[in-house]
Amino acid sequence: MSDAASVKKVVLAYSGGLDTSVILKWLQTTYNCEVVTFTADLGQGEELEPARKKAELLGIKPDNIFIDDLREEFVRDFVFPMFRANAVYEGQYLLGTSIARPLIAKRQIEILRATGADAVAHGATGKGNDQVRFELAYYALEPEVKVIAPWREWDLTSRTKLIEFAEQHQIPIAKDKRGEAPFSVDANLLHSSSEGKVLEDPSLPAPEDVHMRTISPEDAPDQPTLMSIDFEKGDAVAIDGEPLSPAAILTRLNELGRANGIGRLDLVENRFVGMKSRGVYETPGGTILLAARRAIESITLDRGAAHLKDELMPRYAELIYNGFWFAPEREMLQAAIDHSQKEVSGRVRLKLYKGNVIVTGRDSPNSLYNQELVTFEDGAVAYDHRDAAGFIKLNALRLRTLGARKRRGA
Amino acid sequence: MSDAASVKKVVLAYSGGLDTSVILKWLQTTYNCEVVTFTADLGQGEELEPARKKAELLGIKPDNIFIDDLREEFVRDFVFPMFRANAVYEGQYLLGTSIARPLIAKRQIEILRATGADAVAHGATGKGNDQVRFELAYYALEPEVKVIAPWREWDLTSRTKLIEFAEQHQIPIAKDKRGEAPFSVDANLLHSSSEGKVLEDPSLPAPEDVHMRTISPEDAPDQPTLMSIDFEKGDAVAIDGEPLSPAAILTRLNELGRANGIGRLDLVENRFVGMKSRGVYETPGGTILLAARRAIESITLDRGAAHLKDELMPRYAELIYNGFWFAPEREMLQAAIDHSQKEVSGRVRLKLYKGNVIVTGRDSPNSLYNQELVTFEDGAVAYDHRDAAGFIKLNALRLRTLGARKRRGA
Amino acid sequence: MSDAASVKKVVLAYSGGLDTSVILKWLQTTYNCEVVTFTADLGQGEELEPARKKAELLGIKPDNIFIDDLREEFVRDFVFPMFRANAVYEGQYLLGTSIARPLIAKRQIEILRATGADAVAHGATGKGNDQVRFELAYYALEPEVKVIAPWREWDLTSRTKLIEFAEQHQIPIAKDKRGEAPFSVDANLLHSSSEGKVLEDPSLPAPEDVHMRTISPEDAPDQPTLMSIDFEKGDAVAIDGEPLSPAAILTRLNELGRANGIGRLDLVENRFVGMKSRGVYETPGGTILLAARRAIESITLDRGAAHLKDELMPRYAELIYNGFWFAPEREMLQAAIDHSQKEVSGRVRLKLYKGNVIVTGRDSPNSLYNQELVTFEDGAVAYDHRDAAGFIKLNALRLRTLGARKRRGA
Amino acid sequence: MSDAASVKKVVLAYSGGLDTSVILKWLQTTYNCEVVTFTADLGQGEELEPARKKAELLGIKPDNIFIDDLREEFVRDFVFPMFRANAVYEGQYLLGTSIARPLIAKRQIEILRATGADAVAHGATGKGNDQVRFELAYYALEPEVKVIAPWREWDLTSRTKLIEFAEQHQIPIAKDKRGEAPFSVDANLLHSSSEGKVLEDPSLPAPEDVHMRTISPEDAPDQPTLMSIDFEKGDAVAIDGEPLSPAAILTRLNELGRANGIGRLDLVENRFVGMKSRGVYETPGGTILLAARRAIESITLDRGAAHLKDELMPRYAELIYNGFWFAPEREMLQAAIDHSQKEVSGRVRLKLYKGNVIVTGRDSPNSLYNQELVTFEDGAVAYDHRDAAGFIKLNALRLRTLGARKRRGA
Repeated sequence: MSDAASVKKVVLAYSGGLDTSVILKWLQTTYNCEVVTFTADLGQGEELEPARKKAELLGIKPDNIFIDDLREEFVRDFVFPMFRANAVYEGQYLLGTSIARPLIAKRQIEILRATGADAVAHGATGKGNDQVRFELAYYALEPEVKVIAPWREWDLTSRTKLIEFAEQHQIPIAKDKRGEAPFSVDANLLHSSSEGKVLEDPSLPAPEDVHMRTISPEDAPDQPTLMSIDFEKGDAVAIDGEPLSPAAILTRLNELGRANGIGRLDLVENRFVGMKSRGVYETPGGTILLAARRAIESITLDRGAAHLKDELMPRYAELIYNGFWFAPEREMLQAAIDHSQKEVSGRVRLKLYKGNVIVTGRDSPNSLYNQELVTFEDGAVAYDHRDAAGFIKLNALRLRTLGARKRRGA
Repeated sequence: MSDAASVKKVVLAYSGGLDTSVILKWLQTTYNCEVVTFTADLGQGEELEPARKKAELLGIKPDNIFIDDLREEFVRDFVFPMFRANAVYEGQYLLGTSIARPLIAKRQIEILRATGADAVAHGATGKGNDQVRFELAYYALEPEVKVIAPWREWDLTSRTKLIEFAEQHQIPIAKDKRGEAPFSVDANLLHSSSEGKVLEDPSLPAPEDVHMRTISPEDAPDQPTLMSIDFEKGDAVAIDGEPLSPAAILTRLNELGRANGIGRLDLVENRFVGMKSRGVYETPGGTILLAARRAIESITLDRGAAHLKDELMPRYAELIYNGFWFAPEREMLQAAIDHSQKEVSGRVRLKLYKGNVIVTGRDSPNSLYNQELVTFEDGAVAYDHRDAAGFIKLNALRLRTLGARKRRGA
Repeated sequence: MSDAASVKKVVLAYSGGLDTSVILKWLQTTYNCEVVTFTADLGQGEELEPARKKAELLGIKPDNIFIDDLREEFVRDFVFPMFRANAVYEGQYLLGTSIARPLIAKRQIEILRATGADAVAHGATGKGNDQVRFELAYYALEPEVKVIAPWREWDLTSRTKLIEFAEQHQIPIAKDKRGEAPFSVDANLLHSSSEGKVLEDPSLPAPEDVHMRTISPEDAPDQPTLMSIDFEKGDAVAIDGEPLSPAAILTRLNELGRANGIGRLDLVENRFVGMKSRGVYETPGGTILLAARRAIESITLDRGAAHLKDELMPRYAELIYNGFWFAPEREMLQAAIDHSQKEVSGRVRLKLYKGNVIVTGRDSPNSLYNQELVTFEDGAVAYDHRDAAGFIKLNALRLRTLGARKRRGA
Repeated sequence: MSDAASVKKVVLAYSGGLDTSVILKWLQTTYNCEVVTFTADLGQGEELEPARKKAELLGIKPDNIFIDDLREEFVRDFVFPMFRANAVYEGQYLLGTSIARPLIAKRQIEILRATGADAVAHGATGKGNDQVRFELAYYALEPEVKVIAPWREWDLTSRTKLIEFAEQHQIPIAKDKRGEAPFSVDANLLHSSSEGKVLEDPSLPAPEDVHMRTISPEDAPDQPTLMSIDFEKGDAVAIDGEPLSPAAILTRLNELGRANGIGRLDLVENRFVGMKSRGVYETPGGTILLAARRAIESITLDRGAAHLKDELMPRYAELIYNGFWFAPEREMLQAAIDHSQKEVSGRVRLKLYKGNVIVTGRDSPNSLYNQELVTFEDGAVAYDHRDAAGFIKLNALRLRTLGARKRRGA
């Protein structure tokens, strides 16, 4: 725990909900310090003004209330760079929660500097990955910052105690927050996640009602949706030919995905802090985007680049999952990945249907696909069938030498 | 080209179709050598006896006609080991063609030894991967073998010439084989593939009629199919509780996949021989199997093992795609992968619905998932929230040192 | 800190020196528990009987004193498997300290089980890697074990306090131990290391007198030493033709290395716990062994296996450095590495001279080196110069396609 | 073979020696084409003007004779970028020959464009790596170029025939070139290599007289040489405080290395074309440079960056060895590596002594080494010993879960 006496002003990542309101009050009473609230719109789908009202109600000065719409920065500088790597954690998870944390932390540190604060606080629990992601980012950006993680420090270790504390401090409690939530939720423009409680037994299916931003494939329309995405240097820039900002693109893809039951994932994953956990993720737009990116890369990336990317990806995804966005090794990998994206431009056509994302066409002015080369007919300029014999012979040479050793009974 | 004079007896991978029948006759006339035919049932879904009849018709002695049912060996010794790696090439392709080639080559070499032959021949063209896969396997197993690849050697460079040759040598030609096929096909128990001709423009969608072993998601039933797969040491051993042989399992999964529109893939891929090509793959059973394997691994594999597998996988898949099944580096990776599978046992429940494979539960006596550890409530034995603070602090230490350097303007 | 009340019997890794004697007494007085001492001969070059005497003096019952000669197990089951990987950490460090820790921990746990103890303790400090290595091994082998790390717990935070505690508890103090040691030392059959104090400024050279088991290259004889090592399946089995046990081999190599000024390393390295530290390592025998192993592998390992080993090595070395010997990912890598060693047998001849290990010859019945293949003269059976043209053409194909794209100004 | 009729003008990599003079004449007589000669000074230590004279003598027009001093470009744009990766092939080889080839090829293509030539030719044999390196570079830069590799095409397959051809065409033959050379040589500013003939038996030591640019450690002075290298952003910029150009630095290091018997390597390596070969390399300056670079990186690179570099290095070295300098995957890796070098500045002090390169100090304004952090005394700001307990606990968590599974007999 930080030395209580020493904290003067703390920047709290504040949602306006019950938990972070309790944290706000707890910080005031425990550390006897000034609290600065920071509330970000990352596309989680909630109004921000109520957070301002609530902060004011809890005694925060207007100058200490920061509310930012970070949706464009989020998609442009975090989501899109990550997608250039085709990053998936443990083969499946699109890292929707992980990628939001470094941006929130970065903005908290900016506010800390702007307001002369000396500490930051977050509402992540002591068993999860988010505490790591927040704090690694804090420390990387501001090495001497004081970090307060109330969930690891306080004694409000049950829902009952938390509610008592809230009542005691006149924190308004919405009716539906009095009891235990049946699961906990995180959401931003890239995804929403649910975990805990009703999801804790991985042998049971996820209840339909944990899903927030997709309808089920079964409920999706019987007619497929046809659409296209345009790419420039690896990033999506237009949908159905209409140029859109990064956040607008992801918003539109989310709508299309939601409507077609796309992007659900029920996963048991390995947390950085050492245990397995089960989560239900919905990444409708991201799921479409990944399929489209793979398709545009398939015609614009050289094999050498493509395979190197595939080999580096698991490491890259692990770094983001574990919270090392601001680490030099993530930046090195990003430099390699970004270098590969210069020619990744063109259009991908897709069919969306009841959970399926089906590629129906890819086009690029930079295409490396060469119909003449691949055709079964001979005659293409660059290819002589006899070359293949030599190619095979030299690739086989070491295997033949090995085979000969085996033969002589070595 | 091999020295024509020197070939005495050649073992030909013979399908009984027009092309390999032409090859058979061409070998006899060009090399003036004895031909041994080898026809394998790998689950391609064709009768084998017509191949025997045709070989006899073309003058092959009964002793020189080999017809083998290799389905169990194929799935047990090739498909299942590969699936233990969760191998996908270029993020998507399940390697259905690639994995069959080393088995065919291995059997050809066994027959070569049994019959005293000195050469092998295959019907793969000079622009594809299959010639490499066949020949690397031949050379690895029998370093001094003579390899004949008629498509790289002869002058039958157009369909017309091929048909002329066939007519000239009294090779029966099925009516529908006179014209150009609209696409070329490969099939075995794991998958079927289509490529060429009508598929050569990757900007156009694949015609529905190239699909052979799946109905489309749109045509699949409105009711989902619920089912389960049991695993032992990483391999599927039962479906819906019924123990089945490897080949029987894959056959059953194919039926389930086909009926639910599962396992289609339309891909532009990078061939080992250097160009991009476009293929349509159908891997209904394999697609279900991969999803189920990931699910059972998610609760039985430790994070360290799981992440190492993910990082090794692209290399492993590339080796198989490129034809290096019998190379020591593939065997080394296999040793590592197999070592990880000892505890990968248990049951996965799935919902199949219009192209979707949805995991609805996973259970294992060896599960590493620990509900007590992950629960939001404190009190679990092994976890102290304060440990997380230390964990983060030490992980952050180097980032703080870096941050301090940045600060001092280095 | 472990709950003092709850510890009944603790197995301490005990050297007999002042520090671990203080720990012994501190454990007795702080935890009021029975102490079992474990002293191992890992080739550190110290007598063990004085440790027994000292333990008795400090009130340990004879039944609770364990003294083991682990040298053969150390080399056979830890050093040699690690050398099969050609493991070096950060390009240079031969992991001499790291590899000893899991064996000590494993033996402590065995003694814990044999004596019915419930806790283990070690004398590693709170800033180093060794605490991690010991404790990860303890926990992996005995998940519920109580671990006591006095250096992290007690208030003996200065040399003065430590000496006071010793005096207060009648612990004998050797005269030269009263003051601060000028550096701290670790030693076993593989290496000795020095760090701390006089070595803490990496801009200054290491004083000559920190070196313990090598003379300097300048002091080494002017005449080179010629010698040979024989290998079987990757492990050294004989020196100068004389078969020796693993520990005897390493002992002999250490003598040869010491005499010729071989195996010194002055390194700034990155600790797992997050800071950089500077160490001076002496690994005379290991340095010779590594050079010889590379030489025998150079003629017996296939390129595919050799390159895969090289790529996996940094990860493997990092795992050992960080203390993950008993982790499944280390075992997976070991399985891959061991698989590659079946044919790594033969003899390597070396010249040792003033710090240099010079390979002067390598021979193997399993050699893959083929003088006929490599000779500049044509005529070798397996190699046709024209094959090289095809090999290059197909390897170039994708680069030509890329070049053409660049040309057309994409 | 290229179609003889179609070649109009060919740019030949011309050394002025007998072999490339024969090639020159053979190109004229075989292809009946104009020949442009290109002779580069890459620091091989030979005068270039004799090559001009000889080209004129063989009928080359002055306009068609290109002689370039490429030493600075070689070191600045090829050697130094490669050293930023600490690249070593197969654990030992510093890639001296490999790294020169892409530059020669690049310059040939530039001359081809400047002179309107349509073909390039080189003097590399059909069994080596150099043919691959030259030609991959040609094709990458000029996809439709015609490539002539005389050693793969002509019938001058013995030394006798070559001499006969030379005599027949009035090519002057130096007396010592009439017989077979006892080994073949390549040299440039980074290294010299010897291979073939007397070196073909890897069980025998290399004769002393194959060494060209180092004296033996035995012959080196008894007094060590003390020196320092300064680095800026990963590249050496000064020796003993004196700023020097890249080529001047390498030249100076070569002198220092030569005099102290540094940089010899006797290696059996795996060629890209499939066989093993034995070479003797001398890289005096490069060997010193690598040791110094590792030392400066040890204090300026973060662990994450350093370890990622170590893991990527074998792949990077393989790409350069195999001739893929101009491939996108090499450029991607370079981007990652270069990103890491921004702070790699400072001074390294070295002692050179009879084959040894001993680091005696490293200093940097950007050092990440923190004496306060690492000291055994407590009290440093950023480090709390208790953090280590938490760090270990969470790192151990998954191992404990595994251990518990083992315990329950899974």
